[in-house]
Amino acid sequence: MICGGKAMRTIWVPSALGDVSIIDQTRLPEALVERSLPDVEAAAHAIRSMQVRGAPLIGVAAAYAMSLASRSDPSDEALERAQALLASTRPTAVNLAWALAEMRAVWRPLRPMERASACYEKAAAMAEADVASCRAIALAGAPVLEAHRSEGAPLRVLTHCNAGWLATVDWGTALAPLYELHARGVPLHVWVDETRPRNQGYLTAWELTEAGIPNTLIADNAGGLLMRRGEVDVCIVGSDRTARNGDVCNKIGTYLKALAARASQVPFYVALPWSTIDLEIADGDAIPIEEREPSELTTLPFRVLNPAFDVTPAALVTALITDQGVFAPGSLRSRNPPGPERRRS
Amino acid sequence: MICGGKAMRTIWVPSALGDVSIIDQTRLPEALVERSLPDVEAAAHAIRSMQVRGAPLIGVAAAYAMSLASRSDPSDEALERAQALLASTRPTAVNLAWALAEMRAVWRPLRPMERASACYEKAAAMAEADVASCRAIALAGAPVLEAHRSEGAPLRVLTHCNAGWLATVDWGTALAPLYELHARGVPLHVWVDETRPRNQGYLTAWELTEAGIPNTLIADNAGGLLMRRGEVDVCIVGSDRTARNGDVCNKIGTYLKALAARASQVPFYVALPWSTIDLEIADGDAIPIEEREPSELTTLPFRVLNPAFDVTPAALVTALITDQGVFAPGSLRSRNPPGPERRRS
Repeated sequence: MICGGKAMRTIWVPSALGDVSIIDQTRLPEALVERSLPDVEAAAHAIRSMQVRGAPLIGVAAAYAMSLASRSDPSDEALERAQALLASTRPTAVNLAWALAEMRAVWRPLRPMERASACYEKAAAMAEADVASCRAIALAGAPVLEAHRSEGAPLRVLTHCNAGWLATVDWGTALAPLYELHARGVPLHVWVDETRPRNQGYLTAWELTEAGIPNTLIADNAGGLLMRRGEVDVCIVGSDRTARNGDVCNKIGTYLKALAARASQVPFYVALPWSTIDLEIADGDAIPIEEREPSELTTLPFRVLNPAFDVTPAALVTALITDQGVFAPGSLRSRNPPGPERRRS
Repeated sequence: MICGGKAMRTIWVPSALGDVSIIDQTRLPEALVERSLPDVEAAAHAIRSMQVRGAPLIGVAAAYAMSLASRSDPSDEALERAQALLASTRPTAVNLAWALAEMRAVWRPLRPMERASACYEKAAAMAEADVASCRAIALAGAPVLEAHRSEGAPLRVLTHCNAGWLATVDWGTALAPLYELHARGVPLHVWVDETRPRNQGYLTAWELTEAGIPNTLIADNAGGLLMRRGEVDVCIVGSDRTARNGDVCNKIGTYLKALAARASQVPFYVALPWSTIDLEIADGDAIPIEEREPSELTTLPFRVLNPAFDVTPAALVTALITDQGVFAPGSLRSRNPPGPERRRS
């Protein structure tokens, strides 16, 4: 995306086989800070501490992290250790496990001396594939969303968390169709959920504002009122993992917005790359829900529970907008994934 | 309530006709600070800035504020001015308008020199009536809630915002039955919604912890997940205004919890004194929704909308637990309010 007059991605490698650069998202929106990751430990820390976050970006960051690991020690033992370290950082997004499996399929058959360059090339290809995937979501989703716009009025969208370009390598998932509509001159207004406890809504408000898309930040609590008042035409969110039956696991609080959307007959879309679909999991109840530090909510001396995700039942989802097209959530079960060889190795 | 070994109320008058003392709730839970209100302007500021908050307490604070006004200038003009000032502080809770009408019925027929002592006595009586009303809610609600407890396990309650003793003169509304059950030795655990943007959940966690009732603070986003997991036996909240058809206006986000409760077949109760019922309003859509300062949500330079309340349709409410008994929300229409002379003067 263009950001401060400069084309940026969330992750990049300034020179082949070199250190990996990221935007440190824990510093946004106050400051746009680049950070260099010299080794797999730094990359694992970046994922765990959410300097990089968003399911698609976590996958690509893990791929680059394996590339960093193979550069410093390409032995089987070191790479197994690196993979285990990365796998432990975030449990919910399936893209992490998917990316590590993709990388493993590359390095495992090779001799150690061949691994660094092969891993680097694979990670770079996965980053490019993520960008292409998000562009495909943009093109698939734009007409779906635009159909809900009232003649002569802006399309009024509500989104939860950040599933914009900051959550991917570029363009985003849920926000990608909005960037596409904006580029086509379609007027938009986006209600942005604050998204406690980590306030990723600030990231969404920041990137929409940078892109010139009108938006208004609201407390997570406010979306139900707005939908009841008829002030939302459509909801769209991302997904960290989608089960075979179409149940969607996404940032905690997504489910409440899907309930409110259903109650007020507001369509509720989920945008996701195919890599986020986990056909091995029958339904959302089988998805592990990450619990994070109480201090993310408050440092007051209260007992705190801080689950980071929830599950929205497929029945509340109008459609899944993917890089492979738009699907009814219940249709995944019976449909072979397009290009399944990209998912599991 | 007993607080730091000392019996406390949220508002009191240390000596008859003297200044009014409050607990400054903007300082909690970090510090328990008492504040003295010397005049109606200080009292209006205390209400507007939420040093005192909670519909029942707002009503009593406004009554005491009229007592302060009548002490310094008991003329018609001054008291009309004071009433208008107080009426403008918070638009949603009907208790404010109700209390001002009650006070007006006292001072209006009297000669100015008689007003100060009559207003003081009326305000003090209203404070005592609020305590009695909350005790009645405690006794009416305790068996209703206890019926949802599984044998041998704590009753697992979810509440939103603060409808505890801090929201009233003493005892609370939604939390009053919990204090009663705790006193009877019934084991409890309370999930406490943070309640953005003002975080009144901290007040709830603080007062439950002070009372020795186990509780866990959660993000507002987390309640849907907990209900889907079967970790909530019952929800109970307060109300700032309840319409004739049983629609309940309460802190923003209440509606989302009621939707989640219905989806997971968790009973959803609303506890309120009869003074919170507005029989003149047909349904919730007619209730004015206060919009508060964007800075309550964030001081980042984003556009913000900050509505403070939402409406939960009567159809999502299992029952209204009042000081006059337990009612189906749809029964208000056809039932004469017990003691209507207490409501409108």
